[in-house]
Amino acid sequence: MEVFKESYSLITRFLAKSLDYISDDEVSRFLELISRTYRENKKVLVIGAGRSGLVGRAFAMRLMHMGFRVYVLGETIVPALNNGDVVIAISGSGRTKLVVTAAEVAKSIGASVISLTSYPDSPLGKVSDLVIQIPGRTKISVEDDYNIRQLIGMYEPLAPLGTLFEITALVFLDSVVSELMKILGKTEDDLKRMHANIEI
Amino acid sequence: MEVFKESYSLITRFLAKSLDYISDDEVSRFLELISRTYRENKKVLVIGAGRSGLVGRAFAMRLMHMGFRVYVLGETIVPALNNGDVVIAISGSGRTKLVVTAAEVAKSIGASVISLTSYPDSPLGKVSDLVIQIPGRTKISVEDDYNIRQLIGMYEPLAPLGTLFEITALVFLDSVVSELMKILGKTEDDLKRMHANIEI
Amino acid sequence: MEVFKESYSLITRFLAKSLDYISDDEVSRFLELISRTYRENKKVLVIGAGRSGLVGRAFAMRLMHMGFRVYVLGETIVPALNNGDVVIAISGSGRTKLVVTAAEVAKSIGASVISLTSYPDSPLGKVSDLVIQIPGRTKISVEDDYNIRQLIGMYEPLAPLGTLFEITALVFLDSVVSELMKILGKTEDDLKRMHANIEI
Amino acid sequence: MEVFKESYSLITRFLAKSLDYISDDEVSRFLELISRTYRENKKVLVIGAGRSGLVGRAFAMRLMHMGFRVYVLGETIVPALNNGDVVIAISGSGRTKLVVTAAEVAKSIGASVISLTSYPDSPLGKVSDLVIQIPGRTKISVEDDYNIRQLIGMYEPLAPLGTLFEITALVFLDSVVSELMKILGKTEDDLKRMHANIEI
Repeated sequence: MEVFKESYSLITRFLAKSLDYISDDEVSRFLELISRTYRENKKVLVIGAGRSGLVGRAFAMRLMHMGFRVYVLGETIVPALNNGDVVIAISGSGRTKLVVTAAEVAKSIGASVISLTSYPDSPLGKVSDLVIQIPGRTKISVEDDYNIRQLIGMYEPLAPLGTLFEITALVFLDSVVSELMKILGKTEDDLKRMHANIEI
Repeated sequence: MEVFKESYSLITRFLAKSLDYISDDEVSRFLELISRTYRENKKVLVIGAGRSGLVGRAFAMRLMHMGFRVYVLGETIVPALNNGDVVIAISGSGRTKLVVTAAEVAKSIGASVISLTSYPDSPLGKVSDLVIQIPGRTKISVEDDYNIRQLIGMYEPLAPLGTLFEITALVFLDSVVSELMKILGKTEDDLKRMHANIEI
Repeated sequence: MEVFKESYSLITRFLAKSLDYISDDEVSRFLELISRTYRENKKVLVIGAGRSGLVGRAFAMRLMHMGFRVYVLGETIVPALNNGDVVIAISGSGRTKLVVTAAEVAKSIGASVISLTSYPDSPLGKVSDLVIQIPGRTKISVEDDYNIRQLIGMYEPLAPLGTLFEITALVFLDSVVSELMKILGKTEDDLKRMHANIEI
Repeated sequence: MEVFKESYSLITRFLAKSLDYISDDEVSRFLELISRTYRENKKVLVIGAGRSGLVGRAFAMRLMHMGFRVYVLGETIVPALNNGDVVIAISGSGRTKLVVTAAEVAKSIGASVISLTSYPDSPLGKVSDLVIQIPGRTKISVEDDYNIRQLIGMYEPLAPLGTLFEITALVFLDSVVSELMKILGKTEDDLKRMHANIEI
């Protein structure tokens, strides 16, 4: 039970501190881009592998509840992307090969690429029109996240692999949802009306 | 940006407080059951709809990284369940019809059902061998979660629909992962070795 | 290699004969219902478990390529169903519990249910507004498909479990796609333009 | 109804003729490789995009029913691949970028790559240890499939895009299943016992 509680506590403290490390400027550019996508009725495609992909799906559901035309790479219904459509790519390391490849293809088609990653200088960061840097350890490197380590102290195995990145990305995106609801004038009842009623 | 920050802050404060509302006894019974499943090489099947289903998948990935035989209902590879296998069902309201139906079928097959829900008295709770109560608003009711509301104050639309339940369930399960790593003697390197190397 | 060739040959002969067993009337009602759904811009939700679910997804992709608003139960993006929306449910036996439950919920919401099954009198058949009977063995019974057995001779293990139903349902639905292309005035280039260009 | 029937008839005639175009030698090498994978308890990972990916999943389910350790790229549970594991990649054109990338990564990890494609000289074909050529039109080219066109006559729009490849690949793989059942000594009842009983 002790490890359980220490881990829970570490994660919540990490989360609380992380907000200071997320750039206001990046957030406001994200909000602007994503709300323009909505107003212009363009498509959003979410891409990500593993648990980062699951975080992307959780965000995609909320976008759908707000009325976005949103899709997830790898699922059955994925339409063609066109100029003006937006890809949201999530990868802690920014090096996940299948995600980088998909982002590159999206870019070549004329879509804008927004990425969430801990490494703005990664291959994914470099192909992106907008990078939102999310604190977190990554799966491939521990040397260069000295600041995060200082922030929280030793974590392993209290939050193995990409855990901190993934949870922070989820909470970040859920907070973005609330701001988007205000910007787009959506109430919780609006979201409820769009929620899959066959799954309730 | 204000709503974004308030929402982020609400979620992290909710998370931090929630730990006090999770029963030590339920956690330790969960740890015991799930580590026995590992030692006896029994199967784990995770079920859940919508964002709760995504939380379940995130946990399933970590179980796989630790060497569990774990599956997710609705995916391609779902084997037959037998006596002694375990189903982990996640539903904030405990009333999601497809989840309750699946849990009932699992039960009738002889599997044990562990559920994560905010409502132990729900249909899902009633069919479960072990209920872990996770704080959170649910999609279907706001009247009866007076305590949670008191805890945090008004949330809507700072965390619409099941947001608080889903994030709390994810952090809870990730903390369980750390405790399981200790119990089963797994290091982070062990997990890394099991991680899908085609997605790196 | 002999079993391989016998199985291949059995499947294609079964397929060829099956066309005579599919009711013209059921097909034309299906075409009418589904093309009306398109013209009225209503939603289509495809449901099915296991390999039948995969057949449903293959059809859903083509509907998307033709411009339908189409979704697959269990995937990330599943919107609320409303009056006038259509559910297409696929189950050889017509008894798959999760499919029947979902069809019942869809019905109670006001959606029309079209089912593909070998058993019109099954629970799924009974909840459906339109049943299209597709020849095939089912997973749960061999006694009552005497005609099919006569048609082809002994099959086991040349096409185990639901194989014949699943392949026949797929070829049936792909033929419906061609007819729909004509009805809706879609060319192959129209479909190509809608095809996920990130997956090419 | 006419187009429906012509399409159905075209597909079944195409299927029947296709068997002559599938190389006995390729089939027997496939059977040998895949049954060795079973005996050595190695893993199989199936990859494919769009409808080809669905065909792969249908095959993966049957491998699971026969007792293989089998996984599907993009799903929740995808373990690390090691030396001796096998990847089965499906792409009509052999050029689907995400599939080729995944096959290359798999190769670099030490897995064997078996591909099903209409184009053995494609990028996917070139990275493969074994190519099984499956007749079919592909999404990207019509010039070079003169023989197929002769075989059947004009098809568009009787089987748009990859339809013929996808159905032929499915029937091919289901026939391989029957041969594998014989080789591995599996009965239909063995398969039934492994079939997801929560989905019945």
